[in-house]
Amino acid sequence: MHSADRVAFAERFALVRDASLALTRSLNAEDQCVQAMPDASPTKWHLAHTSWFFETLVLQPYARGYRCFDARFALLFNSYYESLGPRHPRPLRGLLTRPTLAEVHAYRAAVDLAMADLLRECPAQDFALAAPLIELGLQHEQQHQELMLTDILHLFSLNPLLPAVFDTPAARRSTPPAAGWIEHHGGDVAIGHAGAGFAFDNETPRHTVRLLPFELANRLVTNGEYQRFIDDGGYAHAALWLSDGWAAVQAHGWHSPLHWLPDGREFTLRGAQPRDSEEPVRHLSFFEAAAYAEWAGARLPTEFEWEAAVTGASPPAQAFGLAWQWTRSSYDPYPRFRPAAGAVSEYNGKFMVGQIVLRGSSVATPAGHARATYRNFFPPAARWQFSGLRLARDL
Amino acid sequence: MHSADRVAFAERFALVRDASLALTRSLNAEDQCVQAMPDASPTKWHLAHTSWFFETLVLQPYARGYRCFDARFALLFNSYYESLGPRHPRPLRGLLTRPTLAEVHAYRAAVDLAMADLLRECPAQDFALAAPLIELGLQHEQQHQELMLTDILHLFSLNPLLPAVFDTPAARRSTPPAAGWIEHHGGDVAIGHAGAGFAFDNETPRHTVRLLPFELANRLVTNGEYQRFIDDGGYAHAALWLSDGWAAVQAHGWHSPLHWLPDGREFTLRGAQPRDSEEPVRHLSFFEAAAYAEWAGARLPTEFEWEAAVTGASPPAQAFGLAWQWTRSSYDPYPRFRPAAGAVSEYNGKFMVGQIVLRGSSVATPAGHARATYRNFFPPAARWQFSGLRLARDL
Amino acid sequence: MHSADRVAFAERFALVRDASLALTRSLNAEDQCVQAMPDASPTKWHLAHTSWFFETLVLQPYARGYRCFDARFALLFNSYYESLGPRHPRPLRGLLTRPTLAEVHAYRAAVDLAMADLLRECPAQDFALAAPLIELGLQHEQQHQELMLTDILHLFSLNPLLPAVFDTPAARRSTPPAAGWIEHHGGDVAIGHAGAGFAFDNETPRHTVRLLPFELANRLVTNGEYQRFIDDGGYAHAALWLSDGWAAVQAHGWHSPLHWLPDGREFTLRGAQPRDSEEPVRHLSFFEAAAYAEWAGARLPTEFEWEAAVTGASPPAQAFGLAWQWTRSSYDPYPRFRPAAGAVSEYNGKFMVGQIVLRGSSVATPAGHARATYRNFFPPAARWQFSGLRLARDL
Amino acid sequence: MHSADRVAFAERFALVRDASLALTRSLNAEDQCVQAMPDASPTKWHLAHTSWFFETLVLQPYARGYRCFDARFALLFNSYYESLGPRHPRPLRGLLTRPTLAEVHAYRAAVDLAMADLLRECPAQDFALAAPLIELGLQHEQQHQELMLTDILHLFSLNPLLPAVFDTPAARRSTPPAAGWIEHHGGDVAIGHAGAGFAFDNETPRHTVRLLPFELANRLVTNGEYQRFIDDGGYAHAALWLSDGWAAVQAHGWHSPLHWLPDGREFTLRGAQPRDSEEPVRHLSFFEAAAYAEWAGARLPTEFEWEAAVTGASPPAQAFGLAWQWTRSSYDPYPRFRPAAGAVSEYNGKFMVGQIVLRGSSVATPAGHARATYRNFFPPAARWQFSGLRLARDL
Repeated sequence: MHSADRVAFAERFALVRDASLALTRSLNAEDQCVQAMPDASPTKWHLAHTSWFFETLVLQPYARGYRCFDARFALLFNSYYESLGPRHPRPLRGLLTRPTLAEVHAYRAAVDLAMADLLRECPAQDFALAAPLIELGLQHEQQHQELMLTDILHLFSLNPLLPAVFDTPAARRSTPPAAGWIEHHGGDVAIGHAGAGFAFDNETPRHTVRLLPFELANRLVTNGEYQRFIDDGGYAHAALWLSDGWAAVQAHGWHSPLHWLPDGREFTLRGAQPRDSEEPVRHLSFFEAAAYAEWAGARLPTEFEWEAAVTGASPPAQAFGLAWQWTRSSYDPYPRFRPAAGAVSEYNGKFMVGQIVLRGSSVATPAGHARATYRNFFPPAARWQFSGLRLARDL
Repeated sequence: MHSADRVAFAERFALVRDASLALTRSLNAEDQCVQAMPDASPTKWHLAHTSWFFETLVLQPYARGYRCFDARFALLFNSYYESLGPRHPRPLRGLLTRPTLAEVHAYRAAVDLAMADLLRECPAQDFALAAPLIELGLQHEQQHQELMLTDILHLFSLNPLLPAVFDTPAARRSTPPAAGWIEHHGGDVAIGHAGAGFAFDNETPRHTVRLLPFELANRLVTNGEYQRFIDDGGYAHAALWLSDGWAAVQAHGWHSPLHWLPDGREFTLRGAQPRDSEEPVRHLSFFEAAAYAEWAGARLPTEFEWEAAVTGASPPAQAFGLAWQWTRSSYDPYPRFRPAAGAVSEYNGKFMVGQIVLRGSSVATPAGHARATYRNFFPPAARWQFSGLRLARDL
Repeated sequence: MHSADRVAFAERFALVRDASLALTRSLNAEDQCVQAMPDASPTKWHLAHTSWFFETLVLQPYARGYRCFDARFALLFNSYYESLGPRHPRPLRGLLTRPTLAEVHAYRAAVDLAMADLLRECPAQDFALAAPLIELGLQHEQQHQELMLTDILHLFSLNPLLPAVFDTPAARRSTPPAAGWIEHHGGDVAIGHAGAGFAFDNETPRHTVRLLPFELANRLVTNGEYQRFIDDGGYAHAALWLSDGWAAVQAHGWHSPLHWLPDGREFTLRGAQPRDSEEPVRHLSFFEAAAYAEWAGARLPTEFEWEAAVTGASPPAQAFGLAWQWTRSSYDPYPRFRPAAGAVSEYNGKFMVGQIVLRGSSVATPAGHARATYRNFFPPAARWQFSGLRLARDL
Repeated sequence: MHSADRVAFAERFALVRDASLALTRSLNAEDQCVQAMPDASPTKWHLAHTSWFFETLVLQPYARGYRCFDARFALLFNSYYESLGPRHPRPLRGLLTRPTLAEVHAYRAAVDLAMADLLRECPAQDFALAAPLIELGLQHEQQHQELMLTDILHLFSLNPLLPAVFDTPAARRSTPPAAGWIEHHGGDVAIGHAGAGFAFDNETPRHTVRLLPFELANRLVTNGEYQRFIDDGGYAHAALWLSDGWAAVQAHGWHSPLHWLPDGREFTLRGAQPRDSEEPVRHLSFFEAAAYAEWAGARLPTEFEWEAAVTGASPPAQAFGLAWQWTRSSYDPYPRFRPAAGAVSEYNGKFMVGQIVLRGSSVATPAGHARATYRNFFPPAARWQFSGLRLARDL
């Protein structure tokens, strides 16, 4: 890497790291400490964990003379890396009132300082080894930026005062396109990442998949359309649902997307807001997405169909930036998938069971983080993400 | 159907139905009533449910003048058909001391008698409609024959007296082949059922899948091989496990396959028996199968690789009749999958999430029930089936 | 003990033991095997456990040359005696399809035979030691006779077929007395058992309790009276309830006594029957009894008030034989209480926390088993016993 | 009340209220927000709830023109008063990152200001009605001061960093007296509160209880003595335990008092500290206290024995200020107990089931809050209070 590249890399490093803190600007220390469910983490924990990632995987092996900020943080802020030692149990992350938010800020600052030094001064041969891990760390940080928003939204939704994360008005949306279908003739398509840009290991290797002809909706299902599913008794009609989905509806009393309020509004990062019938429906589980598709006489696309259409000649509208889109694909490894080497081998591969692939990106995804081969994944009952759907049909 | 065919069909009907009762010969009424976990059902319930299937889907629509044996049985013996009305909750099946076993036997006899009449006398145009449902009912009955054995084995395994289901000695096994690999060159392969014979809807439609070159173990992993995995600390080494698998190991304290006894024996349908190191290992979860494969430097085959190899020119040994084989494929619908019409649309399709495909068949599978396109499926933590594994590797 | 006394003792032994079997006459083997909740035990288990009690505490120490019927039964049929070795877990009693009911009957017969020999031939000095344990065993058997009925009633209540334990009509009830109050002037009263007759250790020692003047209802609260409590919104009015009681109402959705059917009938040992408004209300938890009393402007009597009134000059009607009566007394030890010696020290004392005392006896209590000093006890949320209430007021 | 009395009352009001804040001085906002178990509440919630008590029960009825600080707080800070409207669920108190700690401080300040006005200016006839509620509010605040300490200790104990609430060294303890017994001749004793000073309703009415002669240990059981119980296998010897206690030992893996650290230290309000063998043992459940007494060949005193001894001619040492002392008395109502009138009728009476009485007071009890008739109560498995024991024996 040329020194000019290093400068650019360092600038990007600083931008991504600062973006995490920017998201917390309106949150007080209490907001950033509490955990409302085991699936979600406190903001403070996200801030510390992403720093621990750089400290553990980059600074400790590659920064000469780096002294660990606090040896006890390895226990507290390791998320799930078995190879990196014992961990504080995930459901107890919210009990960590200490270290304080101020101490976590100091931790971030110390890590950032040491990273700036390393980005500037690290010998070339070390840098060649460290750079992919730094890049992974930045992508990782961006993933946590989205989780910080979904997690705080979930926490605030459980507070009767319905606080807002952001007090600025939402950007005005453009009108969605009229509903329509985009045809794809099927055939052999190349799926997965190849080439120079960054991709997670789970997007590789690129391989051929045989598709049958299909068509994909040109836009996402809207709140208004989903409301008609509800009005038509969608949540009360077992035949529309997968068996586990119907069990979830009954066990949890689901009757609308998460964060829809009884008064017709929805709970958002800007607090309770009127629900826009033209906005994409969000905060659906896979089960709800699949039931809606059944009701609509359609189906969910496979992740291969989605990728083929989005990278094809006539990509559908609303592919990125609005809502993650549940697919009809379980999160299985691609043929000849190999996890990345080292501790980060645990990054993706060990979660390849019991999850469903989502494609696209959402309103909460950081700019520059989305791409057509990206495989997001969550369990089929998860609803606290910005998750919606797009329809598909056989041709 | 010619009348000669009808006679043959009726004979087969009687054979399959009698085979269910034959499995219960050594079981008393108490054995057949109790339910040890929600996943398993009492023998008596299996006997009644399979009869309810014929009564509801065949006799009521097609047997002129048929009078329902007991109208209350619809509630008690419907398994999961939402479209056929309310059901007694699955976890409470073991509380049904009434109807008694004798009454269930009478129910079976009445259904069999009415079915014999129908098979003989039903008008041709009705028979054309009924025949596929009767065939499905027989295949369904055979599936429950295997479940009767796995469920009673599980129940008996929890009794400190360790009772035996069968008191006859097991058939002598032939020595398994020496371990080896069978190559497959990959390429486009046709997957799924087509043609005249019976298949479940989930095996269709037949479609093309592109495979990369691979090799498949010529036989199943044995008890002796699995013991070496245990001896090598397999159950204590997180890096071998999927994340959910490792959580299951810790939550349940797994340290060997289900039904392995601390004294070195295993619990079988013939009671506690010496464990044969050359027999295929059984009663593994998907998680254990995947961890073993990782430890062995291999992987599980996909269901497509399995089917391609078994239907290929050099099929591997031990494909059927020993143990169901976990694959690395989630149970997703085939392209353009359509559930069967009517109530039986609920037979397979609604379970296509959260499950893993197993291929082959086991010691408990009735003769004639196995085929290369068969897709068995269970959740990844299920261990009470006769489930083992076969290794695969990339070429 | 004179030989004539021994003959009488042996006759009583046989009568009590036969009475247990008589209760099972209409039950098939399936009915007697199943366990519907951890609090309840299968009929077969009761039959075996009461035999194990005699075998372990009487035959093994005192019957010369007695050979244990089956050494494995010690594990299976020990209820809760820590000093007598390990036990099969209580919630798994219903999995014991083996030993079969027939084998348990044989066990009972063998124990009875050996007990008959012992009662006839045991040397006097041994008999002096054994007799109190035999007496305890008979009282214990009678306690289980009542539990056999409450447990089977509970099991059958969960069967949609609503089977009957007894097919004979219930005895006609005499009209209850008009509601009224019986005054007691209070003062020092002697509470607890003393003298020659049998009593459990928890009824001793007899001691003085100072009472304030009070009055006790002359009869039990009836179904009709309790219906008025329901009609008046008793189950929806938090102020009537103890805090834990209100939590139980909401957690379990209680809205009537257990075994009241939605159609206005009640489920009884004789199946679903019309509900008699003049019968004592039964199958109440302590929480419901206390809420009713609050609603009625009264309270529950303490166990001391109950005993003083029943042993006083004007005992109230309906003291015994209709329903156990919840008192406002926690089940604490009497002053200077000492558990019986030996293994039977675990009989009562170790349960003296978290339970509420009930006094009187019920329709299911064997004849001769009731007395004024008897302290029955159950947790405050228990409803499957024949438990009702009687009101008290301060004077 | 004379104006001089009012001044004194106002001064005491300010002192008690300030004492609550003083306890939080070393805690940051995060520490004060988090809830580690449903039984415990966040510090911030305690601060707000005690203010809500005065606002709701005193200011709203008696302070002319008082304007509610925030109408939404009634939902958030009502603890358990069903008559005062709906409540935020107890287990979710820790999710209330808003209102912030600063807002709660403002709430306290506003309530204190309005209370100061009321204490100064309220008309005499109103003051006569308000004064008992103010007094109750202060006693209530003091109870929460103790809970603030036990709850934060519990929260901090779950943080691997083992933070300290107080950084000042503990006061030096005087050596406990040598172990000895104090005799009481029994007989009729007067139990409960009467007279002018404050007492909770559950301490009344004063009534006569007949005691048998007994003796009471002159001091509490020490850490050193309890260690000998552990060393002697106390936690492994079922015969020492009540049945529910033994079940708790096994379910929770108890093997020492709560807050004893594996390294021989104990976790305290001052962080991990050496364990003083002469200090009273604390953080015991009732079950452990009772098992220790059994092991020691003694028993727990009844609450009546405790009160009689402490109010007698030769009161035992260490009655107050060290550890609450489990008694062998269930928390039942005294004869003719009547709850206080109005909303505060829910203060004590509705908890009178399933709890055990503790007597004395602890290191965490505010000065002036203890008295001989005080009835503290907790469920028998509770260990997070400063709870120890004193032995008793029959004479």
